[in-house]
Amino acid sequence: MPQSPTYDDVLSAAARIASHAHRTPVLRSRLVNESVGADLVFKCENFQRMGAFKFRGAFNALSRFTPEQRRAGVVAYSSGNHAQAIALAARLLDIPATIVMPHDAPAAKVAATKGYGGQVVVYDRYTEDREEIGRALAAERGLTLVPPYDHPDVIAGQGTAAMELFEEVGDLDALFVPLGGGGLLSGTALAARALSPACRLYGVEPEAGDDGLRSLRKDAIVHIDTPETIADGAQTQHLGTHTFAVIRREVDDIFTVTDAELVEGMRIFASIMKIVVEPTGCLGFAAVRKLAARLGGKRVGVIISGGNVDLSRFASLLAS
Amino acid sequence: MPQSPTYDDVLSAAARIASHAHRTPVLRSRLVNESVGADLVFKCENFQRMGAFKFRGAFNALSRFTPEQRRAGVVAYSSGNHAQAIALAARLLDIPATIVMPHDAPAAKVAATKGYGGQVVVYDRYTEDREEIGRALAAERGLTLVPPYDHPDVIAGQGTAAMELFEEVGDLDALFVPLGGGGLLSGTALAARALSPACRLYGVEPEAGDDGLRSLRKDAIVHIDTPETIADGAQTQHLGTHTFAVIRREVDDIFTVTDAELVEGMRIFASIMKIVVEPTGCLGFAAVRKLAARLGGKRVGVIISGGNVDLSRFASLLAS
Repeated sequence: MPQSPTYDDVLSAAARIASHAHRTPVLRSRLVNESVGADLVFKCENFQRMGAFKFRGAFNALSRFTPEQRRAGVVAYSSGNHAQAIALAARLLDIPATIVMPHDAPAAKVAATKGYGGQVVVYDRYTEDREEIGRALAAERGLTLVPPYDHPDVIAGQGTAAMELFEEVGDLDALFVPLGGGGLLSGTALAARALSPACRLYGVEPEAGDDGLRSLRKDAIVHIDTPETIADGAQTQHLGTHTFAVIRREVDDIFTVTDAELVEGMRIFASIMKIVVEPTGCLGFAAVRKLAARLGGKRVGVIISGGNVDLSRFASLLAS
Repeated sequence: MPQSPTYDDVLSAAARIASHAHRTPVLRSRLVNESVGADLVFKCENFQRMGAFKFRGAFNALSRFTPEQRRAGVVAYSSGNHAQAIALAARLLDIPATIVMPHDAPAAKVAATKGYGGQVVVYDRYTEDREEIGRALAAERGLTLVPPYDHPDVIAGQGTAAMELFEEVGDLDALFVPLGGGGLLSGTALAARALSPACRLYGVEPEAGDDGLRSLRKDAIVHIDTPETIADGAQTQHLGTHTFAVIRREVDDIFTVTDAELVEGMRIFASIMKIVVEPTGCLGFAAVRKLAARLGGKRVGVIISGGNVDLSRFASLLAS
């Protein structure tokens, strides 16, 4: 098993992705600050290439392939953004990509994955096991599997978003991070501990999929059925071995929010901050709004993980 | 009559607004560049305070008030964003503000104006003359009228957006700017001619309100009835004396786009660039898409003027 990633791996990842990933903007809003009563900074990975932080980890992992691995190709399974990320990174690095996607993935994500040149293999999110399908394809065709979160290179890549945030804004009192399988949260933890050691670090997951919270409480990885939530990027059944090892050590707590709270966050992002954020990307901000009474006067970071949401779905959520 | 503004006035305005206005981000999108075939840079005034470039001109104008003018207060008439801009700038400078707004202004803009502490006076956009109402209020109450566009201080303030854009990206081959009354376009012209003399400068207005184009062709200000268009920020009936003087001298051409083309631009902004842009803010980009064949390989700037659109209206336009 590969070693647990460290902040040095985040630094190496930052150098590898520098000329390919966007250094995404950090946005602030006086109106939002007034409504919450805290000093908020938003790291906007919805402006990342392909629309989500996932590009960072995918590009970092693929750029470490050997020449043999590059020739044979990569296989990935994903609820959406990791698929696009692998497909785009593979295209940039001239590696053939096969992507295993759920049958009900947002149409925009499937189209984008194919647009980047990825070959898409579909499975049923509720009856089939994507990890098995991914492993079988890897074995049959000699492909290298890059999992969506439980891989040291993926984790290190995701940590570069928080690294950039701390470089730009300095110390924070607290940082809220969307939590699905834990790739973004564990990578963020590596950066946060190195760059702002006193910063409290919180993961936020959908209430319907609170396996992260339960895992932290039990101090062991808890498996759940695929949760039904609008946060399609956090419909994970369990944390990973690598991600949980970092999360249990470095993360201060995990909070959950409802789908209605995500929609309210999405509406504020659109109406006040003028940005399009996918439901999963609203996890951190939804928790901040819920915990506002405890955050008064604090400097609080929020990672917005992505902005890939079908326009029709976005419109109907805004209108709801 | 006050003197015609110059680039020196833009520089002075930049110094005055520096600690109050946002230096808004410049966004790029590889996907949009591929679709248009040009190298596009978007100056995002939808991220400006109160959601539009209008804050720049309003704050610049109000900060030049004498102590007597400050005590008596300001009056402004506006289809929306200028109202919010004056209300916010007045609050920051501790000046009482009275705002004359059309009865059918977007609810979000009326609410925001009141939220900033402005006193709102309503009129009928199709039967009453807002300029007369504004002048009458000014005379009766001793208020200073700050018009939405035809004022040298307003023009100079609006020019700071393009100044920042050129400072950040250097020379451009062309720059596309939304055109209503011409405040943004004439201010932009002052900055463009100083900072990128060879840059072709284009105004873009709604097809239903092509008075700017007709004025340029006729070389005299053409008056029209209030145009019916979704670009509520460009529902102006004529250019101003000051704005036209600059526009006829400095602007290379004016283009028009349909409401349907604005909606298509809005959809691309939301789905690919993850930003919320109001219909008027889509004017420049809509023209760029229409003229793509003539812009191949060029470095093209687009000013996104604002992002203030009711969520319900935004949702229904996206879904259309």
